[in-house]
Amino acid sequence: MIVVMRASATQKNIDAILSRLEEHQLKGHLSRGEERTIIGVVGAAIPPTLREELELFDGVQEAVRITRPYKLAAREFHPHDTVVDVRGVKVGGDAVVVIAGPCAVEGEEQILASARAAREAGAAMLRGGAFKPRSSPYTFRGMGEDALKLLALARDATGLPIVTEVMTPTDVELVARYADVLQIGARNMQNYQLLEEVGRTGMPVLLKRGLSATIEEWLLSAEYVIAQGNPNVILCERGIRTFETATRNTMDLNAVALTKRRSHLPVIADPSHGTGKWYLVPPLALASLAAGADGLIIEIHPDPDRAKSDGGQSLTLENFAALMPRLAAVAHTLGRKMG
Amino acid sequence: MIVVMRASATQKNIDAILSRLEEHQLKGHLSRGEERTIIGVVGAAIPPTLREELELFDGVQEAVRITRPYKLAAREFHPHDTVVDVRGVKVGGDAVVVIAGPCAVEGEEQILASARAAREAGAAMLRGGAFKPRSSPYTFRGMGEDALKLLALARDATGLPIVTEVMTPTDVELVARYADVLQIGARNMQNYQLLEEVGRTGMPVLLKRGLSATIEEWLLSAEYVIAQGNPNVILCERGIRTFETATRNTMDLNAVALTKRRSHLPVIADPSHGTGKWYLVPPLALASLAAGADGLIIEIHPDPDRAKSDGGQSLTLENFAALMPRLAAVAHTLGRKMG
Amino acid sequence: MIVVMRASATQKNIDAILSRLEEHQLKGHLSRGEERTIIGVVGAAIPPTLREELELFDGVQEAVRITRPYKLAAREFHPHDTVVDVRGVKVGGDAVVVIAGPCAVEGEEQILASARAAREAGAAMLRGGAFKPRSSPYTFRGMGEDALKLLALARDATGLPIVTEVMTPTDVELVARYADVLQIGARNMQNYQLLEEVGRTGMPVLLKRGLSATIEEWLLSAEYVIAQGNPNVILCERGIRTFETATRNTMDLNAVALTKRRSHLPVIADPSHGTGKWYLVPPLALASLAAGADGLIIEIHPDPDRAKSDGGQSLTLENFAALMPRLAAVAHTLGRKMG
Amino acid sequence: MIVVMRASATQKNIDAILSRLEEHQLKGHLSRGEERTIIGVVGAAIPPTLREELELFDGVQEAVRITRPYKLAAREFHPHDTVVDVRGVKVGGDAVVVIAGPCAVEGEEQILASARAAREAGAAMLRGGAFKPRSSPYTFRGMGEDALKLLALARDATGLPIVTEVMTPTDVELVARYADVLQIGARNMQNYQLLEEVGRTGMPVLLKRGLSATIEEWLLSAEYVIAQGNPNVILCERGIRTFETATRNTMDLNAVALTKRRSHLPVIADPSHGTGKWYLVPPLALASLAAGADGLIIEIHPDPDRAKSDGGQSLTLENFAALMPRLAAVAHTLGRKMG
Repeated sequence: MIVVMRASATQKNIDAILSRLEEHQLKGHLSRGEERTIIGVVGAAIPPTLREELELFDGVQEAVRITRPYKLAAREFHPHDTVVDVRGVKVGGDAVVVIAGPCAVEGEEQILASARAAREAGAAMLRGGAFKPRSSPYTFRGMGEDALKLLALARDATGLPIVTEVMTPTDVELVARYADVLQIGARNMQNYQLLEEVGRTGMPVLLKRGLSATIEEWLLSAEYVIAQGNPNVILCERGIRTFETATRNTMDLNAVALTKRRSHLPVIADPSHGTGKWYLVPPLALASLAAGADGLIIEIHPDPDRAKSDGGQSLTLENFAALMPRLAAVAHTLGRKMG
Repeated sequence: MIVVMRASATQKNIDAILSRLEEHQLKGHLSRGEERTIIGVVGAAIPPTLREELELFDGVQEAVRITRPYKLAAREFHPHDTVVDVRGVKVGGDAVVVIAGPCAVEGEEQILASARAAREAGAAMLRGGAFKPRSSPYTFRGMGEDALKLLALARDATGLPIVTEVMTPTDVELVARYADVLQIGARNMQNYQLLEEVGRTGMPVLLKRGLSATIEEWLLSAEYVIAQGNPNVILCERGIRTFETATRNTMDLNAVALTKRRSHLPVIADPSHGTGKWYLVPPLALASLAAGADGLIIEIHPDPDRAKSDGGQSLTLENFAALMPRLAAVAHTLGRKMG
Repeated sequence: MIVVMRASATQKNIDAILSRLEEHQLKGHLSRGEERTIIGVVGAAIPPTLREELELFDGVQEAVRITRPYKLAAREFHPHDTVVDVRGVKVGGDAVVVIAGPCAVEGEEQILASARAAREAGAAMLRGGAFKPRSSPYTFRGMGEDALKLLALARDATGLPIVTEVMTPTDVELVARYADVLQIGARNMQNYQLLEEVGRTGMPVLLKRGLSATIEEWLLSAEYVIAQGNPNVILCERGIRTFETATRNTMDLNAVALTKRRSHLPVIADPSHGTGKWYLVPPLALASLAAGADGLIIEIHPDPDRAKSDGGQSLTLENFAALMPRLAAVAHTLGRKMG
Repeated sequence: MIVVMRASATQKNIDAILSRLEEHQLKGHLSRGEERTIIGVVGAAIPPTLREELELFDGVQEAVRITRPYKLAAREFHPHDTVVDVRGVKVGGDAVVVIAGPCAVEGEEQILASARAAREAGAAMLRGGAFKPRSSPYTFRGMGEDALKLLALARDATGLPIVTEVMTPTDVELVARYADVLQIGARNMQNYQLLEEVGRTGMPVLLKRGLSATIEEWLLSAEYVIAQGNPNVILCERGIRTFETATRNTMDLNAVALTKRRSHLPVIADPSHGTGKWYLVPPLALASLAAGADGLIIEIHPDPDRAKSDGGQSLTLENFAALMPRLAAVAHTLGRKMG
């Protein structure tokens, strides 16, 4: 940490800082410039609240944190890519992985048709919501455990591992009984009890970025999971909220590329939520791979205009089948395989 | 709902819409303009997914929802102000209510000193965190039930009702045993199980606006609580996330004034989180009242530079005491009392 | 400036930095911590591009600027409030100043009626657009010089000084012939030739904040004007662009309070553009004063529903007359007069 | 346009609307639903201010515009792709076009080395700033006409057409004498006099999207140029401003894909400004092509750590040479050539 003193700061102001640092078993190195003094804080363990604390001292202009607040998720300390193994499907390795399926499980026929189409087109995993977070209490909120059972059925039928969302800590045990990957939705990215609970399962976790979460906050949320001894975190960019209203969200592919540098965790992208419009899914899916994503999660539906949720951003099974070879071609061009 | 057809839409396209509307027991009124046709959808119960559904039809440019998706929280259907009664303190009535206290309960001395100072300066309720949501797993996360007990002690000592946050559904019963108002934090504004759980208690709920939540989403979250039969919702604007980084958040006082028009619920403001800097709290507290807020929630601390969280945005007890008469003066000028 | 080295940085990396600093006649002070080294940059003149330059060196995690990039606009170097004198009306002093008038001058009757109503209600200056920036080429773009003549007429009739926008450098001379204050609109906040041109006139300049401008960028734009020897800059917060669409813009009253601390320049607020809705103008006008604004600029119109622009956010003359005593009351409560 | 009445609106309210529509030679079609009435507005020429006007009427909840406000830039009315011809280089056709060069022209050696490297690697045009918009008045602002002469020299040496920015209407004639494409920078996207002035030249115009401009506003700015009889507009996405600070801007590739659908104009992308970090330029350049961009504009510099501006986001000539075959490979995979 660095403490920048005001031009007007006195020696007494500086001494007060140094003395507080000593209380914390820290040392301050002074650099006196033409205009102002800066104090470099040196020591083993800088308390997380030190910045705010020191900014309250007289004569301080600002205190600047110089290390990133996450460790376990940081590439700086773990240079090698983490590869998450989901029943043999490797996420974060050479191959690009596509997860496909409907927004929500709506019935046996719908989920089986989707699963078979996903499988046939080359997807590696099946998604499907059993518990749906919905901004309005008046909309369809998922079939719950019945949906989990249908997902298990679809896994039996196709061999595809299952990704499904869990929304609250008390449901973790139930969902974990059926799912292969526990999804944490964007609205729950900072639901810390939930993060710890899925952390404790040791199972693969798909952690979506919050609508207005910085990359740093996203990695701190991953840190919550890993801190429970569970390194199997797959990050998922799914669009952020900006001033632009022509699309549902704004996909942040800068974040995909930057997060791959800052962290060793696999990063996938969700162009369905990222755009909110089915006809934007193909170009943004291709773009996500080109930006370095390790995979994609894509909503498909046998009959989008009768879907109970997210119909507008779901690909038909035919459109998904047409997209897959294009994804594979771009992946190959980039030197990757399809997983 | 209104369906806007493209200039190029055919009669067949229009007929397909009308026929789908019939399936839903709805009717379509056509308005044929020079350039395009629009279809007004008329009927008793418009399904929440109809907009997305119809936008998938050929020839449709867009479907526009024309009613607000919340009902119970809407002033249109409940013209009179809701007044929430917290052990005799009325929120949303003539009087402006100030809630003060530390970010987190840190110990008996700290909470008692804060409570007494709050009381003496004229605050009507005491805040204090027992369970703290923190973006990093390495920071202080609250004293838990011990904090709740200390809050109860402080209430006994001062008579001030207690506002404290509950973060997860399974804690609601515990927190409700001690608290007078259950606070839902910004990060949990769309934690729907939690909203329903606090809804079921029937107790007053202080619902903070999410960092990137629209006013409409905020009122839909209130709707979740009210739909459980609990109309005692106090809305709290606490700053939104924008591109500006010079302040922690951007207080949206437009939202305070607009929400008072759109909803019958009381709206208070949190200038501590809204600004993130103690020296901006007084001007923004005054501004919040002038914008029409029914109250304020303000962080105070006997010793901010030793606070375990949010020290930088906490007023000293002296500064809080100096602020209160200024708040009262502005409230009186606006024709309101201090509660 | 401070250069933060990576944990993995070598002595050679550090030496390369020190040697580049020497080329710039700067010195580097090393602080070696447990985990990494930081280099404090000391010297008289740090080149503005040094940060980017050093971040390109191997072993550098980031370079952090520690001084604000503006000087002439900074309170740190000019502790006393600047008071801008507009034909005897003082902006930035004890008194709060209200500027009122229509969005655009539409004709003699309209501007005279507005000016008289403004005067009568206690406004200190008259606003009115002659050249209007409009996002669509198909909308009314102002009456040009004819409008300037009508503004001069209205000044003659009422004694109110005139505030009007100038949009392009070649118009500055023309507008300056009629206006008392040259307004720079939000879209032109970073039109640097225009800033310099109005700077050269020495006349009072009302500088609106850009829709997505940080406070720092806003003050840098003021710096452009002052650097031409013209200290008569009045800053104007007029709402920023955020994700919220229920209001036209989001008024940032944090910025009003913070800018008053960071700069010695007067700061006023524009609740008409800040909210976009006439019924939100009164609460936000009051809130702006409470947040510390030195004045307000408010759109009024004799007949808003027939206005050629911004009718939806214009107060009727009656509503404006009703608002003024409330503004005065709040100003007095805050210890200020009406100008 | 559609006028949505409140549930409480009276017949008198509706009649007032109908009568105002008649004044404008428009008609209103009523659709009476269970809860409220909506009025479809029909007629040849809806005034641009009608929405605001009608929202001021009693009983109106909102008025909703249903047509897009741009015509000349809209694909709806011009289904075929516009191809802009720049001295034989076609932008918007089958081939993808790469424009490369330094942020600013700094001297003969620098621009010639850059131009030759650009040419050799396969770029189709040369960029280089002569007039630089800079947020601080204390930074390098370009070499002006001398830079234009050097650009012409570089064109003579390599045959590459020149793209350079013009910042103010009075410079258009000068810049047009040297340049092949007139660039309008992000800060000037709504500088309407400038847009009209470059429109009048009939020359190709590269129109960058503003930092906080919606797609609709961007296309309206294109409309200003086209309305002067100049259809040669190349749109350029260069990142928008969001809450994320880890990157300079957030590239909005959704906008690239959506704008290609909404407009017939070519759309290119600028990953240098879009990311602000040289090491993010390759992945985002690839991603932009995959999202459907018709080309790229990329900053390169022979010696980035000595660049006078934007060094941090400039590729070295070697890195650019290494990127080009990867871009070509992705372009081919997508069925396009390199231009």
